Amino acid sequence: MAKRKSSVGAPRGGRSVWSFGGGKAEGRGDAKAILGGKGAGLAEMSRLGLPVPPGFTIATTACAAWWASGRRPPKGLWPEVERALARLERLRGQTFGRGPRPLLVSVRSGAAVSMPGMMETVLNVGLTRETIPALVAVTGNERMVQDSHRRLVQMFGKVVREIHDDLFEDALHDLKRRRGARLDTDLSAADLAGLAETYRGVFRDETGEEFPDDAMEQLRQAVEAVFRSWECDKARKYRRIQRIEGLLGTAVNVQSMVFGNRGPDSGTGVCFTRDPSTGENVFFGEFLIDAQGEDVVAGIRTPEPIVEMGKHLPDAYRDLLRVKDLLERHYGDVQDIEFTVEEGRLFVLQTRTGKRTARAALRIAVDLVKEKRITPAAAVSRVDPHALDQLLHPTFDEKAATRVLARGLGASPGAAVGRAVFTADDAEAWSGRGEKVILVRAETSPEDVGGMHAADGILTSRGGLTSHAAVVARGWGKCCVVGCAAVSIDARAKSFTAGEETVREGDWISLDGSEGRVMLGRVPTVRPALGADFATLMAWADRFRRLGVRTNADTPEDARAAREFGAEGIGLCRTEHMFFATPERIRAVREMILADSTEGRSRALEKLLPIQRGDFEGIFGAMDGLPVTIRLLDPPLHEFVPHEEAQQEEMAREMGVSAADVERRVRALHEANPMLGHRGCRLGITYPEIYDMQVRAIAEAALACAGRGVKVLPEIMIPLVGFASELSFLRARAEAVIAEAVEGSRRRIPFRIGTMIEVPRAAVTAGRIAEHAEFFSFGTNDLTQMTCGISRDDMASFVPDYIDRKLIPRDPFQVLDRDGVGVLVRWAVEEGRRARKGLKVGICGEHGGDPESVAFCHEVGLDYVSCSPFRVPIARLAAAQAELRERGAAGKPGRGRPGRR
Amino acid sequence: MAKRKSSVGAPRGGRSVWSFGGGKAEGRGDAKAILGGKGAGLAEMSRLGLPVPPGFTIATTACAAWWASGRRPPKGLWPEVERALARLERLRGQTFGRGPRPLLVSVRSGAAVSMPGMMETVLNVGLTRETIPALVAVTGNERMVQDSHRRLVQMFGKVVREIHDDLFEDALHDLKRRRGARLDTDLSAADLAGLAETYRGVFRDETGEEFPDDAMEQLRQAVEAVFRSWECDKARKYRRIQRIEGLLGTAVNVQSMVFGNRGPDSGTGVCFTRDPSTGENVFFGEFLIDAQGEDVVAGIRTPEPIVEMGKHLPDAYRDLLRVKDLLERHYGDVQDIEFTVEEGRLFVLQTRTGKRTARAALRIAVDLVKEKRITPAAAVSRVDPHALDQLLHPTFDEKAATRVLARGLGASPGAAVGRAVFTADDAEAWSGRGEKVILVRAETSPEDVGGMHAADGILTSRGGLTSHAAVVARGWGKCCVVGCAAVSIDARAKSFTAGEETVREGDWISLDGSEGRVMLGRVPTVRPALGADFATLMAWADRFRRLGVRTNADTPEDARAAREFGAEGIGLCRTEHMFFATPERIRAVREMILADSTEGRSRALEKLLPIQRGDFEGIFGAMDGLPVTIRLLDPPLHEFVPHEEAQQEEMAREMGVSAADVERRVRALHEANPMLGHRGCRLGITYPEIYDMQVRAIAEAALACAGRGVKVLPEIMIPLVGFASELSFLRARAEAVIAEAVEGSRRRIPFRIGTMIEVPRAAVTAGRIAEHAEFFSFGTNDLTQMTCGISRDDMASFVPDYIDRKLIPRDPFQVLDRDGVGVLVRWAVEEGRRARKGLKVGICGEHGGDPESVAFCHEVGLDYVSCSPFRVPIARLAAAQAELRERGAAGKPGRGRPGRR
Repeated sequence: MAKRKSSVGAPRGGRSVWSFGGGKAEGRGDAKAILGGKGAGLAEMSRLGLPVPPGFTIATTACAAWWASGRRPPKGLWPEVERALARLERLRGQTFGRGPRPLLVSVRSGAAVSMPGMMETVLNVGLTRETIPALVAVTGNERMVQDSHRRLVQMFGKVVREIHDDLFEDALHDLKRRRGARLDTDLSAADLAGLAETYRGVFRDETGEEFPDDAMEQLRQAVEAVFRSWECDKARKYRRIQRIEGLLGTAVNVQSMVFGNRGPDSGTGVCFTRDPSTGENVFFGEFLIDAQGEDVVAGIRTPEPIVEMGKHLPDAYRDLLRVKDLLERHYGDVQDIEFTVEEGRLFVLQTRTGKRTARAALRIAVDLVKEKRITPAAAVSRVDPHALDQLLHPTFDEKAATRVLARGLGASPGAAVGRAVFTADDAEAWSGRGEKVILVRAETSPEDVGGMHAADGILTSRGGLTSHAAVVARGWGKCCVVGCAAVSIDARAKSFTAGEETVREGDWISLDGSEGRVMLGRVPTVRPALGADFATLMAWADRFRRLGVRTNADTPEDARAAREFGAEGIGLCRTEHMFFATPERIRAVREMILADSTEGRSRALEKLLPIQRGDFEGIFGAMDGLPVTIRLLDPPLHEFVPHEEAQQEEMAREMGVSAADVERRVRALHEANPMLGHRGCRLGITYPEIYDMQVRAIAEAALACAGRGVKVLPEIMIPLVGFASELSFLRARAEAVIAEAVEGSRRRIPFRIGTMIEVPRAAVTAGRIAEHAEFFSFGTNDLTQMTCGISRDDMASFVPDYIDRKLIPRDPFQVLDRDGVGVLVRWAVEEGRRARKGLKVGICGEHGGDPESVAFCHEVGLDYVSCSPFRVPIARLAAAQAELRERGAAGKPGRGRPGRR
Repeated sequence: MAKRKSSVGAPRGGRSVWSFGGGKAEGRGDAKAILGGKGAGLAEMSRLGLPVPPGFTIATTACAAWWASGRRPPKGLWPEVERALARLERLRGQTFGRGPRPLLVSVRSGAAVSMPGMMETVLNVGLTRETIPALVAVTGNERMVQDSHRRLVQMFGKVVREIHDDLFEDALHDLKRRRGARLDTDLSAADLAGLAETYRGVFRDETGEEFPDDAMEQLRQAVEAVFRSWECDKARKYRRIQRIEGLLGTAVNVQSMVFGNRGPDSGTGVCFTRDPSTGENVFFGEFLIDAQGEDVVAGIRTPEPIVEMGKHLPDAYRDLLRVKDLLERHYGDVQDIEFTVEEGRLFVLQTRTGKRTARAALRIAVDLVKEKRITPAAAVSRVDPHALDQLLHPTFDEKAATRVLARGLGASPGAAVGRAVFTADDAEAWSGRGEKVILVRAETSPEDVGGMHAADGILTSRGGLTSHAAVVARGWGKCCVVGCAAVSIDARAKSFTAGEETVREGDWISLDGSEGRVMLGRVPTVRPALGADFATLMAWADRFRRLGVRTNADTPEDARAAREFGAEGIGLCRTEHMFFATPERIRAVREMILADSTEGRSRALEKLLPIQRGDFEGIFGAMDGLPVTIRLLDPPLHEFVPHEEAQQEEMAREMGVSAADVERRVRALHEANPMLGHRGCRLGITYPEIYDMQVRAIAEAALACAGRGVKVLPEIMIPLVGFASELSFLRARAEAVIAEAVEGSRRRIPFRIGTMIEVPRAAVTAGRIAEHAEFFSFGTNDLTQMTCGISRDDMASFVPDYIDRKLIPRDPFQVLDRDGVGVLVRWAVEEGRRARKGLKVGICGEHGGDPESVAFCHEVGLDYVSCSPFRVPIARLAAAQAELRERGAAGKPGRGRPGRR
């Protein structure tokens, strides 16, 4: 046996098998780490007295032990399984692999974290030449039994022995063609019996062995195949994308089969306790009469809305309504429930927290508080900050002329515009080239997840709202339209037709994930109104969080947008973007660069001064009453000059100099490693007149705004400081320029001067730097580049390999590297505050908008994070969750928010 | 009175004036804080009974009090001065400002720390209209008296009343022109008397006052002028730059004047107690009859060798011989003595430690130990490690006639003679034919290393002391002159011009890497024999030092040379230089780079395997019994491919592929910031077959050498590690390759695997990395680049400005940045050793050969430093000095050297 960590809810002892059903269970619902999500759910439901088909769960520890011991089952596993089977036989009054009432079981994977479609399932285990006649006798339904038989051989062959599925599917299509059958259901019992024999032949040809007619042998092989599936490529890829870490393996759920395909009083379905798309408190779902679960998910037959079930199966429907209320109340959250009705009797197969859109998540969280089911803190904790992305993203401009090609089911809302591609690989390739793409498929399968993730939107011609494409896309908040039958796809030709229109690979289309519309061309988008639920939840979040949230904004428009999203100031206003804004500006900048004397540069800078002053006036106005951190010029000068010959000639013409002069200057500016070159405060030191101009523009703009009654709180930020002496030099100069600018004015504006901490040396010597800085702002993009020695521009050649080989858990530019960069950040905060009481400390790298990194910023005690306007609400929510987690972990009341400037 | 700290050697009490002379002194030689350096020296010499012109010192406390009380002399100062003057008058039998034998005095500044030229001096104080005729009468030398007179007016005017010196100099030139005089000495007594009157007129015009003809008034004003000079701009600046802090002020030395120009029984001279050029124990120096000290320094008359003095002034010479022996014995070191003979009587004006050549320093230190004047520890402490540089490189024969074409920066010392070539390829080709060549380039790049290595010397017209050429050359100990702007290169014509001269390909030139001289033709060189003194001193140094010293060497030749210099192993063997060594090798490397599959790469690597194995066998053989640290491939692959179109075409032809293929691959390898790109262990992870080949070559070479009885201690070093996971991955692979290679062999070779610490993140996470590393080696070149965010290749555009503005004290690539990089190094050593007892820690950046950085390495407890072969003795000496300083500071006996592998 592998070592096992003790886990909440898992009874003690070395056991690998946990039975459930018949109104009780050996395991508990909070033992997910050991029982997996599905197994824990089944245990929990059994304990709640819900009608769960009884069975047992083989623990994740057994899977881990199987891998650890070179793919050998842990000692004692099979005897435990046999004892659990015996209990199951007693509960169901059936016998496994023999007897007049044969027991069939399903074998399903189930990890601690949901990985839909990633691992394997084998149904109908226990059907053998011996049990088939008995089952026919007891059910009186030969067609169903033979259909189950051929499905077993197919699934077993595919999952356990890795036989290519096409071999089975071809045989099915061949048979259907010969019989003239359109649907599977058009085939007779005899057809299906023959098909099962054909499948057994395929099995024999491919493996060189007979299909096993020993039930216990089938079970053993199926269980090990599930263990194996834990490490298959697609599962590993999924875990990487979803950042799933630290799991032991998958559990295996062995559960007695119930049949939704036993005739018109049977059926199967999937339902949500509330609408997962809008969050509305209405019962939502789909069902199919006389069908098995896979028929719903596969999207081969189009299911009926759940409310219709009352007409066909009234008793079972009544039970289902009771069950769904019970489950939602029990879990305090929306449930996604799979069920089967066997001859009128309801069985609940699975329940889990329902995936939902961001809009629905908000509404559900707010509604549940209103219904007094949960507290505001729980509501705030529950909404995934990443999900807010969806809400904050644009929707189509309804006033725009659109040409709707087709309508499908709006499976995951959003507005996606991209170029049509027809395979997952193409989606990845095109997207890798920076193209926006819409992945168009008849249906999707787990093999497609890479391409689905890379695409901006997903369109399928088949499948329903609970199909693979719909579920996965919703989980990611990615725009998705499914079941769009009007779209006829020619996968080989890489095109689709809708009516008269043909869309070929590379053509632009637009998808409306809410309404299910597929539109031709690039439809313009607009920003969504956020609504009351958003405001309510954000207000709750603000009540809890301790961390301030500012925004990175370079224009008054961005500043205003961010303010609407709740930004409490500007944490980073990049002045270089302003230099590019108009031809007039770039001309003056280039004039400065070409100048070979301080005087020449000063002349060019004189032209920029009024322009910059105007920029700052606009921003100060938009942020009236809130602090605005302005970073002085940062990028190297070569970013402002053209590198192509033709453009250099044009520049030379424009500036009235020779092309050779331009070329010479551009060559002189070339650097081997510009990231570590002449930029940031180094420019301010070699060409002090540049920063002088910028500081003057800030000071004059502040005075002008103050004169109009605007409350101005300017913070001047010096970039790329590595030595305290740099800051001391530039600070003295800036103070002199400010003093000169405000001389004679009676207004007192509280200028602050601080620095970026983005060079590792600045973090190391933060104590000395703080002597000259009123604030620090961590530039974690550059700090990560230099600390890890990784250039973002060049990392594509090796970082993907690193992630594949698990050498690093993820891209350190997306999620802050706690162990490396984080140590420097923590050190700098401590040393900085030790040297200067009341030092303000923030972060303005992209990490400021990443929830996990925001949590880190909270932990190390930063005053604020700053992020792009659209990420401000994400940061607010993440900051609140970090505080709530801390309270939860410490079991202490919150400290509340300290006063922030 | 200002507060006064009690100071050793300063008698207690509130006195401000301390007399000396006549065989005794009131102050003591260790009272520098109060008496200043010069005053303490004069007191010391007086106490030794040396014939010092008597005088008195006004204490630094008086200067402090003068400033503290708003520039007013402390109460009681002038009465004290008058008492001291009276004593002086008695000693000299003269009277100040009156009488038949007038006393003249000099007034000089003298702080506790030497600040040469920073503060003021006034000579001949006491000459007045009244004393001039008396002095003429008593000396019989009117010319001397009038010359002293005009000098007093000029110096007093300039120092005390701040009259611009030009006004005096113009009058002098004017007079000389009118008299047709070439030298000052061509002027007659009458001329000088007239000039003194002209100067008095200048004084009157500028100050509105008459020049003071009161001796006491002259003295008072001169003393206060010296006090004032303590806070003049240049003195303050000097103290800031030199970080001189905590001084009270300057002392003022008032000393009776003696005149060496009183006739044939007078004279003046400078002598050394031993020959400062060879160190030989012979009396060395020069003197002039009837002259003042400035005549010796000005070089107007040619002085005579000191031994001649015995003929002219036998009594004074006998006294001088006694004095010099006494002084050398007293100070325990060679003394540089200034003296004057006035009418046959010897006066010692000053003594100080004599500056000497490296060779002399060695000989003197060793001789003094033999003579039992000093201990071996003192001898080791006394030799400047930097000075050894001179000894270790061949030098030009200074007796040879030379024609200097131009001067650049001496980047790497040595004397190189060779024929000028203008491309790296030519350098390789000519050198391959057995020619000695000097590679002349505007600047060099990594593509040139082959040619640079082949050349005997390198000359560039651009770049500074840390340019590529300088760094690489220094690493190899190869003579190099950089930044020689006077050389104008025409690369196309393969020639350069310097002034009138044109040097064409194949012409002989000579480079002086110490002085930066570029000379025409073949200047003869001498290879210095290191000699017995060197060996003796080094043996003493090795007795004291605790730090090991290894070398950076890539070839058996370098390894052997370093071993002769005392290297105790190789700390860095760079394998990439081996890849460039021959066309065959570079071809295989390029084949590997062009391959688009693991198999293709492996095929190319198979060709390199036997070659690398041979390389390592050679090095292991040369280092028999000593550890050899081999760094696996480090530079990015693009350094191995040509970037020019023509060369790419040639490469394509050679490799049998299309030029487009080559161009595409080169383009794909291009990086925005190669320093932070795909190199070091990142290559080893994406292309594991490269490191596999190298490790196999190391293991096979080790086995083969061991089979021949060589004791092999291989250390495999993984570069650019930032994450412990990288090292763990590569270590496991390397161990597997080694296990496979040694399988079946009965020899047990102690392979060690460790890593460079050169990425800041590696330093931060050193504890985790040490779990997988048996040793650390700090790559402080890259660590400095990334920690400071400064690219060495690009720093020329701003670092000089930084040093000019004193923002950083010096180039952090020359002397390790203690406050920034040093903090990370210290942290990494502590964390690494905490995680792994007995972790070996060294340094292999260029800092390993810099004495100040070596001292840092000693302080943080590294096991060894590694540097280029020629710097090994420097490091040995610096390491011993660091230990001796530590013992001195702690007043403790040495720890002795721990056993090193």
